[in-house]
Amino acid sequence: MKTYLDCIPCFFKQALDTTRIMTSDEVKIKKVLDEIGIMIKNLSLNSSPPEIGRLIYDKISEITGNPDPFKEIKNIYTDAALKLYPYLKQVVIQSEDRLFMAIKLAIIGNIIDFGAKSSLIKSPHELDIEKEVKETVKKGFNLFSYKKFKNYVLSSSDILYIGDNAGETVFDRILIEELEKPVIYVVRGKPVINDATYEDAVRAGIDKVATILSSGVDAPGTILARCSKEFRKKYDNAQLVISKGQGNYETLSEEKKPIFYLLKAKCPVIAKEMEVEVGDMVLREANGV
Amino acid sequence: MKTYLDCIPCFFKQALDTTRIMTSDEVKIKKVLDEIGIMIKNLSLNSSPPEIGRLIYDKISEITGNPDPFKEIKNIYTDAALKLYPYLKQVVIQSEDRLFMAIKLAIIGNIIDFGAKSSLIKSPHELDIEKEVKETVKKGFNLFSYKKFKNYVLSSSDILYIGDNAGETVFDRILIEELEKPVIYVVRGKPVINDATYEDAVRAGIDKVATILSSGVDAPGTILARCSKEFRKKYDNAQLVISKGQGNYETLSEEKKPIFYLLKAKCPVIAKEMEVEVGDMVLREANGV
Repeated sequence: MKTYLDCIPCFFKQALDTTRIMTSDEVKIKKVLDEIGIMIKNLSLNSSPPEIGRLIYDKISEITGNPDPFKEIKNIYTDAALKLYPYLKQVVIQSEDRLFMAIKLAIIGNIIDFGAKSSLIKSPHELDIEKEVKETVKKGFNLFSYKKFKNYVLSSSDILYIGDNAGETVFDRILIEELEKPVIYVVRGKPVINDATYEDAVRAGIDKVATILSSGVDAPGTILARCSKEFRKKYDNAQLVISKGQGNYETLSEEKKPIFYLLKAKCPVIAKEMEVEVGDMVLREANGV
Repeated sequence: MKTYLDCIPCFFKQALDTTRIMTSDEVKIKKVLDEIGIMIKNLSLNSSPPEIGRLIYDKISEITGNPDPFKEIKNIYTDAALKLYPYLKQVVIQSEDRLFMAIKLAIIGNIIDFGAKSSLIKSPHELDIEKEVKETVKKGFNLFSYKKFKNYVLSSSDILYIGDNAGETVFDRILIEELEKPVIYVVRGKPVINDATYEDAVRAGIDKVATILSSGVDAPGTILARCSKEFRKKYDNAQLVISKGQGNYETLSEEKKPIFYLLKAKCPVIAKEMEVEVGDMVLREANGV
């Protein structure tokens, strides 16, 4: 997906909110915005938003001197989600269609996103995950592609599952357990916002249900040109790819592969691209699948 | 008022929305954002938002080659408000406290603001002014300073009334008619967003109830250092100043004069400065008055 003009004000907003978590030094924060300002001129709208996000988050780390500002908050979210794990499991067990319910929960997990909803960063405890799950699970989902997805799961010998945020990982684990196929769970190559790294996936217990693989990418998405050879090989041969969240969608939306995007559409640009409303919970396949 | 870091993403958003009205040429729109990006580094947060806004709107005019893109839309809003004039007048006449009601209406008129609510620009007819007035007039207002304001009106021999947006001018006229004092109505020195110029004030019939004076300013606010000598003289000698809207507040908030700000607080930054909630309708005096 290309970057829209609408993404540009949003880059500044995200950078501002993220940098404020890391420092209260207004001079440093202004410096971040100055540097992003200078970048804009050289940004191609043909890049995907995570390609630009990578440059922005690199700049923030450079200026603040903190390469992993969300480490602690990521742990808080993962631990909160883990406490909820038995409840989530019960919800799945008691549902009429376990796979269908597990997909819904995996999408609900995508609410834990600091990039798109930076207010979460400021007050992690404001997100009452249990309440959110209980309310959201009753809402309508746009699981356009459920039947097709189910068929792909049944016919694939293994599945590549590209994760998104720490904490959401626990919800992914619930879905992985229902897939009943060998799963490779893909994490970012280094910390970026609250995206899940290897360490975060292990904390969520993903290692108990899947093989964890780093994409090698240092961006909030899966920029194929920057992925490791090992990941590319797995990706190229994958019979089924599950792509979680906006950042992965933004970088993989034009791929011609059996990819299924699971996400909550959090911004007008994504909603428009996917032909849904902002806030919609979506399961949709790649074009041509 | 200084510019907050939060204003920076908002500058990009406003510039994007405004430029989109003027052209659908994405290259030109990107060019506007590029140029604003370059500006950020040299912006002092000690400038008021309208000082920066001036540079931004100048740049937009330069790149799009359109010095007055809102001319037609301003007329549409003024004419719509004029149609409502007899109704507004009735509301005042039938009220228990005519001045109090006229202040409320003048603040309600401040909803017609393209800078702060750019969605209005795109679809001027979406703002059903009559409906908005009928609904809003019932709501709570933060007219903290009503008694003090009334005393100032009674004791002043004349009043300097600094207008804001075209269309809102008709609501100002309603208030001016209740002041029962000679009023000088101040307009911008040249078109900027949908701010009222001399021509817009005349179209609203302000010339029938007040003397119209240009501040000489080419910005969406009253930057005193850029005002004409004539305006400065009137301003320095004014016994009472009425300042409409955010742009005037942002440029006059630190003045030690009998200024009363009438506005709808449309953004979190202004709401915080004024210690009110976003959306509040406010009448408040300058510090120390």
